[in-house]
Amino acid sequence: MSVTAPQGFEAAGVAVGLKSTGKPDVAVVVNRGPLKVGAAVFTSNRAKANPIIWSQQVVADGVVEAIVLNSGGANCFTGSFGFQTTHQTAEKAAELLGVSAGDVLICSTGLIGTGDDAFRAKVLAGTEQGIAELSADGGEAASLAIMTTDSRPKRAVVSRDGWSIGGMAKGAGMLAPGLATMLVVITTDAVIDAAQADAALRSATGRTFDRLDSDGCMSTNDQVTLMVSGASGIAPDPDDFAAALAEVSRDLAKQLQGDAEGASHDITIEVRNAASESDAVEVGRSVARNNLFKAAIFGNDPNWGRVLAAIGTTQAAFDPYDVDVWMNGVRVCTAGGPDAPREDVDLTPRATDLVIDLKVGDSTATILTNDLTHDYVHENSAYSS
Amino acid sequence: MSVTAPQGFEAAGVAVGLKSTGKPDVAVVVNRGPLKVGAAVFTSNRAKANPIIWSQQVVADGVVEAIVLNSGGANCFTGSFGFQTTHQTAEKAAELLGVSAGDVLICSTGLIGTGDDAFRAKVLAGTEQGIAELSADGGEAASLAIMTTDSRPKRAVVSRDGWSIGGMAKGAGMLAPGLATMLVVITTDAVIDAAQADAALRSATGRTFDRLDSDGCMSTNDQVTLMVSGASGIAPDPDDFAAALAEVSRDLAKQLQGDAEGASHDITIEVRNAASESDAVEVGRSVARNNLFKAAIFGNDPNWGRVLAAIGTTQAAFDPYDVDVWMNGVRVCTAGGPDAPREDVDLTPRATDLVIDLKVGDSTATILTNDLTHDYVHENSAYSS
Repeated sequence: MSVTAPQGFEAAGVAVGLKSTGKPDVAVVVNRGPLKVGAAVFTSNRAKANPIIWSQQVVADGVVEAIVLNSGGANCFTGSFGFQTTHQTAEKAAELLGVSAGDVLICSTGLIGTGDDAFRAKVLAGTEQGIAELSADGGEAASLAIMTTDSRPKRAVVSRDGWSIGGMAKGAGMLAPGLATMLVVITTDAVIDAAQADAALRSATGRTFDRLDSDGCMSTNDQVTLMVSGASGIAPDPDDFAAALAEVSRDLAKQLQGDAEGASHDITIEVRNAASESDAVEVGRSVARNNLFKAAIFGNDPNWGRVLAAIGTTQAAFDPYDVDVWMNGVRVCTAGGPDAPREDVDLTPRATDLVIDLKVGDSTATILTNDLTHDYVHENSAYSS
Repeated sequence: MSVTAPQGFEAAGVAVGLKSTGKPDVAVVVNRGPLKVGAAVFTSNRAKANPIIWSQQVVADGVVEAIVLNSGGANCFTGSFGFQTTHQTAEKAAELLGVSAGDVLICSTGLIGTGDDAFRAKVLAGTEQGIAELSADGGEAASLAIMTTDSRPKRAVVSRDGWSIGGMAKGAGMLAPGLATMLVVITTDAVIDAAQADAALRSATGRTFDRLDSDGCMSTNDQVTLMVSGASGIAPDPDDFAAALAEVSRDLAKQLQGDAEGASHDITIEVRNAASESDAVEVGRSVARNNLFKAAIFGNDPNWGRVLAAIGTTQAAFDPYDVDVWMNGVRVCTAGGPDAPREDVDLTPRATDLVIDLKVGDSTATILTNDLTHDYVHENSAYSS
């Protein structure tokens, strides 16, 4: 059910030819509840797509009525024509829904630098068709329409006492052909205000989606949106709501990692006993972005030297010669030298656990990443050919 | 001739079984000139191999008599036993040459975390054999002995009026099986003092080797050494010497780029009109390290959107919507939108020129990199198997 699991939402997914395969490519989610609260977080890339520039303005007042998402084109670096396409899409949706265009979010994903008349016409047609097909059980269709090369839709629902949160997601770092755009829509029928929605969303994404670092490449189009209908009439404890939102976010982030194209290993990097959480994140991310380490994992090679070489490039507090490294439960390095023989490490399972113990503090962080594979190179080199 | 082209140097390269192929694996270069000046720059990785820790102390006083280099083992994270191996190697060379061990540099390359009794015995044997075979035309043999999976040796010589500079190099970012270690030895018979040698070396490496960024992975063992014999008796103008040293360094850096394993494109990224040179370097490096861009070039896909997405992650001064991007002479992006059609760009040649015009200042920098290929993944995943 994804985004229509909570009360007060309608959704649809339609096919208008943006995808050459003919599969669904435009999704619409509309808030029909008593509240019209919205919050969103966006890519921190300074090169932002037109839908990001638009949506940042829309969400500023905390009011969101609807969101329109398309695959088949990122609408990024398409000049003023591209921005007008985004604007016209919001106007079209607003007109048909009887709301203000300034309360309609837009998301796009696909190739940068393309977005001609034909693209605009299809997005507008998809918006119209999607709104015509809105239904209270349209969450599944919507989750299918935002897929690009995802092999399966990503959906999550948590239900609490009388209220619930539902979500859908697409993409991950290794997705071709675009730029790894991650689009997420989360809905809830809990009664919360805009400030609480914003705070809970930032807290949840900061420790879930922001710690999924499949290939170190930051998209121009990433957007995670929370829409609040209040249709349950129940105002949960703020901590309970934040915990449930983090649970849905973590679930979707793990689904993104597990479906990263080309990947043959899902790598969980846990950094322990760091001086600060930001140190732990920096150390974990340095390993997640090290191509030599990622290629070694693809080859089932427990090459822990590449872990130390990666973390040696960071500014985090630790002594490189007093770090323990564990791979799938085997301590392969301790105190600046080898420990258990590398033959003891079995890297054949898809799930790979790397633990780095910095031994300097009590902070921890977990980064999710994938290995660097032939299929990754293939998927990301074969776009135009 | 490489390192024995200048007067006052002897060198050798021998095979002692560190390489399973039986090819030469230990090189020795000895300064026989009236001056014994040395300077070196080292990896900035905090995880440093034992030879780096040793050599940093040796070079501190500006006096260097000899250097011993081995492939077949990085001697990094091998504990105190590994440091003793480095120390004993220097002692052995010093004893045989009749010099102080504190004036003998050591370099190693290979897998991290290995370096047992057998490794030590072979390195010591190679040191002894290499010194026994020293000759004034041993530069070629030395350049062969430092190769790992280099397909060809890297040598360069520049001759000026009565003095010369010679150099040899191994490695590049994409070299398997080790960690991309770059080892360089440069010799000169010009008369210069330690301070001038150090300044000229830092200046040359800062704009040549430091701007070769094949895959963003920093080694634990990188070392670039300059040895000065003074045997020509000629003290060149400092600017002339610095220019000649930069020329040799640039030549060797380009040879490293051109032989990067797995690469099918040599990519030159020129960043123009930046507010500062450091901004230009940051922007160029962000593109050089973007896997999606590198995979696109492998696929001969002029996917300029990935260039903008990469530079959008930097803190450099520029407006992402007022940047020009040229690929192989074709301006594909201008002022936040597409320019010439991507079909106009021919990426089939190995040499690939990317120009990024930031339009905010007058500083420039050039970064050399390679594409991300199937062979890169293969080479770097297949070590243990």
